[in-house]
Amino acid sequence: MGSIEEDRSATAGKVISCKAAVLWGPKEPLVMEEIRVDPPKEMEVRIRILFTSICHTDLGFWIGENEAQRAFPRILGHEASGVIESVGAGVVDLKEGDHVIPIFQGECRECAYCKSENTNKCLKFGVDPMRKLMVRDGTTRFRTKDGTPIYHFLNTSTFSEYTVVDSSCVVKVDDHLPLDKMSLLSCGISTGVGAAWNTANLQVGSTVAIFGLGAVGLAVAAGARARGASRIIGVDINSAKFEKGRGFGVTDFINPKEIQTPVHQEIIKLTNGLGVDVSFECAGNIDVLRGAFSSTNPGWGLTVLLGVQAQPDLLPIHPMELFDGRRITGCTFGGFKGRSQMTTFAKQCFSGAVDLDKFVTHELPFDRINEAIQLLMEGKSLRCIMQL
Amino acid sequence: MGSIEEDRSATAGKVISCKAAVLWGPKEPLVMEEIRVDPPKEMEVRIRILFTSICHTDLGFWIGENEAQRAFPRILGHEASGVIESVGAGVVDLKEGDHVIPIFQGECRECAYCKSENTNKCLKFGVDPMRKLMVRDGTTRFRTKDGTPIYHFLNTSTFSEYTVVDSSCVVKVDDHLPLDKMSLLSCGISTGVGAAWNTANLQVGSTVAIFGLGAVGLAVAAGARARGASRIIGVDINSAKFEKGRGFGVTDFINPKEIQTPVHQEIIKLTNGLGVDVSFECAGNIDVLRGAFSSTNPGWGLTVLLGVQAQPDLLPIHPMELFDGRRITGCTFGGFKGRSQMTTFAKQCFSGAVDLDKFVTHELPFDRINEAIQLLMEGKSLRCIMQL
Ligand SMILES: NC(=O)c1ccc[n+]([C@@H]2O[C@H](COP(=O)([O-])OP(=O)(O)OC[C@H]3O[C@@H](n4cnc5c(N)ncnc54)[C@H](O)[C@@H]3O)[C@@H](O)[C@H]2O)c1
Ligand SMILES: NC(=O)c1ccc[n+]([C@@H]2O[C@H](COP(=O)([O-])OP(=O)(O)OC[C@H]3O[C@@H](n4cnc5c(N)ncnc54)[C@H](O)[C@@H]3O)[C@@H](O)[C@H]2O)c1
Ligand SMILES: [Zn+2]
Ligand SMILES: [Zn+2]
Ligand SMILES: [Zn+2]
Ligand SMILES: [Zn+2]
Repeated sequence: MGSIEEDRSATAGKVISCKAAVLWGPKEPLVMEEIRVDPPKEMEVRIRILFTSICHTDLGFWIGENEAQRAFPRILGHEASGVIESVGAGVVDLKEGDHVIPIFQGECRECAYCKSENTNKCLKFGVDPMRKLMVRDGTTRFRTKDGTPIYHFLNTSTFSEYTVVDSSCVVKVDDHLPLDKMSLLSCGISTGVGAAWNTANLQVGSTVAIFGLGAVGLAVAAGARARGASRIIGVDINSAKFEKGRGFGVTDFINPKEIQTPVHQEIIKLTNGLGVDVSFECAGNIDVLRGAFSSTNPGWGLTVLLGVQAQPDLLPIHPMELFDGRRITGCTFGGFKGRSQMTTFAKQCFSGAVDLDKFVTHELPFDRINEAIQLLMEGKSLRCIMQL
Repeated sequence: MGSIEEDRSATAGKVISCKAAVLWGPKEPLVMEEIRVDPPKEMEVRIRILFTSICHTDLGFWIGENEAQRAFPRILGHEASGVIESVGAGVVDLKEGDHVIPIFQGECRECAYCKSENTNKCLKFGVDPMRKLMVRDGTTRFRTKDGTPIYHFLNTSTFSEYTVVDSSCVVKVDDHLPLDKMSLLSCGISTGVGAAWNTANLQVGSTVAIFGLGAVGLAVAAGARARGASRIIGVDINSAKFEKGRGFGVTDFINPKEIQTPVHQEIIKLTNGLGVDVSFECAGNIDVLRGAFSSTNPGWGLTVLLGVQAQPDLLPIHPMELFDGRRITGCTFGGFKGRSQMTTFAKQCFSGAVDLDKFVTHELPFDRINEAIQLLMEGKSLRCIMQL
């Protein structure tokens, strides 16, 4: 990292030319090109991204499933870690050289939401699929070589050697924590574990069903195991996920394609006719959501929505199905307030609560990012870490 | 009540002839006729009903809004109080002369649900709109003079001088509590107050919106005020409810018919742009439900469904609207476990937590029950207590 030290002093305040993976249209391969990154403006920071990985949410925007997800050219990516290259005017709690992770669910610490203990949403820097420009001045910090503006993504845009994010969307992490693994905490793992801990508040003996065993779903499993859940039922149409699942604490597996009965009936059978205490939808599919709901206990079951539902379909649930006390909720970034709570969560992970290593199934150099996309699309990877 | 004492010894074990209000078809006036009531079978009790009132749920079945609500002839009614006339074999915790209220949400104390602290649903005696016969033997205890079986309703059927209910659906109450007011606890008031206390767990400073200011909605208001809610916004299309509402703690009123903007926008304005912490749907209307949901804070707001939704319409909510932590749930009988918790709740009411008197807007003799139905239909009454 000696060279990065030098870079920093040389580049602060100047436009940086660097490599980024640019998306020009839905489903097109990302194009590795030289871009220009402006210096951070007031309350912004410029980060030298060192590691990034791909989350299914990137895939949704890459595919451009709905109107809100289309804006080109754009730099995707939101799971990452790096080092602050320079800070804009007014930034006092971050400085050059700080180890950081970007957070797509920002935390301004000043709005009514940030001041509430009941949500991790931020009114100004909360995740907004429609947003494609910097919040404070509504412009972009990225351009192509010939000056075409490039859009931002989820407050972060980490598929680039350098990115500019608002200081509300950055968490400083301990210098001695490994930055490669730390990148996982900036989305998938925090989301899954946080859903189990913060949103569902699982207890010793809780019964759980997880629909979709990607990194998010398996992080839910890891979180459920850490809390002492007695039964962790994993559901996936890809049986290859089952071997992996075992390592995260999944106790039973169901592949909906391999049984004749509806999945929820199978789950009710596995839980003495009761249904699970909590089900988690981690596939982003409305029919799966219905199955997850039907798998919960009618008197107290909670359904937690994690998967991004890109279609216009409304909840396939009749109001009277909630009448005996069933509950539904969703969560973003596992309910964690990034700047306030990530430091503690990182400590918990690295002291053994969650085994981050197991989520890293692949590593590739950054310029093979299109292969990394394919690996996730095909269900072959959990997380593929790319070093920049 | 001397005569009732006599009745009891004379009637135990025998068929009783008495007056009941029988429903012969949807929307037909109830017919006051002499019926036969069989003695209670094993684990059942026969109750001399002394007071009953009409809840909107009776109206739904009277109107026969959907298939599940149609079964004729039938004896409706579930808000009541009375005295045990006789008990069937095996009943040990209830005896002749006990003051009781019937509970439509029974509690067997033996099923997995009854044993769970997380629900007031009972697997065997929970409220079931389809049920029209006694649970244990699947027959009826009511007949017309000429032998036509008459269906039961919501485990209770209180529009009759005598009714037979399962011992799981009865709560013994203190002898010195006034039975007329106690009848209110067997549905509406417990439902509303319980929704505020048990389901929503309102706190000092909570902000609340209540859609539909009938007895249920105003009981929510009473419960919210008792918990120290800072703002209790009442919504009703009948402005006549507003004067009443003030007495229950409602702080602001909105009549959707009298404003140009959607109700939820008005509520968001009234709450500094945040939306309420909790909204309660107490009207039984899917559009109202949507309004209630939209009025809650997107980051932590809870929508509690109380109104019976008789139509097939599904939840008009997109899954992503829950993504920042919004929650939806429903509740039956306010989440109270009747047999375990009603005694304490009654004490709380009579020691001032909830002013029951204010809910009694009318009193009529039992044989004018059709007038009582009209009063509720037209929004003129909260509760009309009929003495039998
Ligand atoms: N709420 C949040 O803050 C948040 C954060 C990160 C990701 N997400 C979303 O969570 C979801 C999962 O993300 P990921 O990175 O783990 O994705 P992933 O692609 O690694 O995993 C998805 C899994 O779902 C399985 N699946 C697909 N269809 C299924 C079906 N019909 N039934 C059962 N399983 C099925 C796939 O086989 C795969 O194993 C995505 O929708 C993503 O956008 C949400
Ligand atoms: N969940 C339960 O356990 C439970 C128990 C009792 C009653 N309920 C249900 O609760 C609901 C209320 O019962 P109640 O006895 O208080 O009824 P009610 O008829 O006394 O009150 C309903 C109120 O809603 C108002 N209303 C109707 N349409 C409206 C609209 N579009 N917008 C705003 N307000 C509107 C009416 O003017 C009336 O004031 C009913 O659906 C009933 O079936 C449920
Ligand atoms: Zn993500
Ligand atoms: Zn904020
Ligand atoms: Zn009722
Ligand atoms: Zn039970």
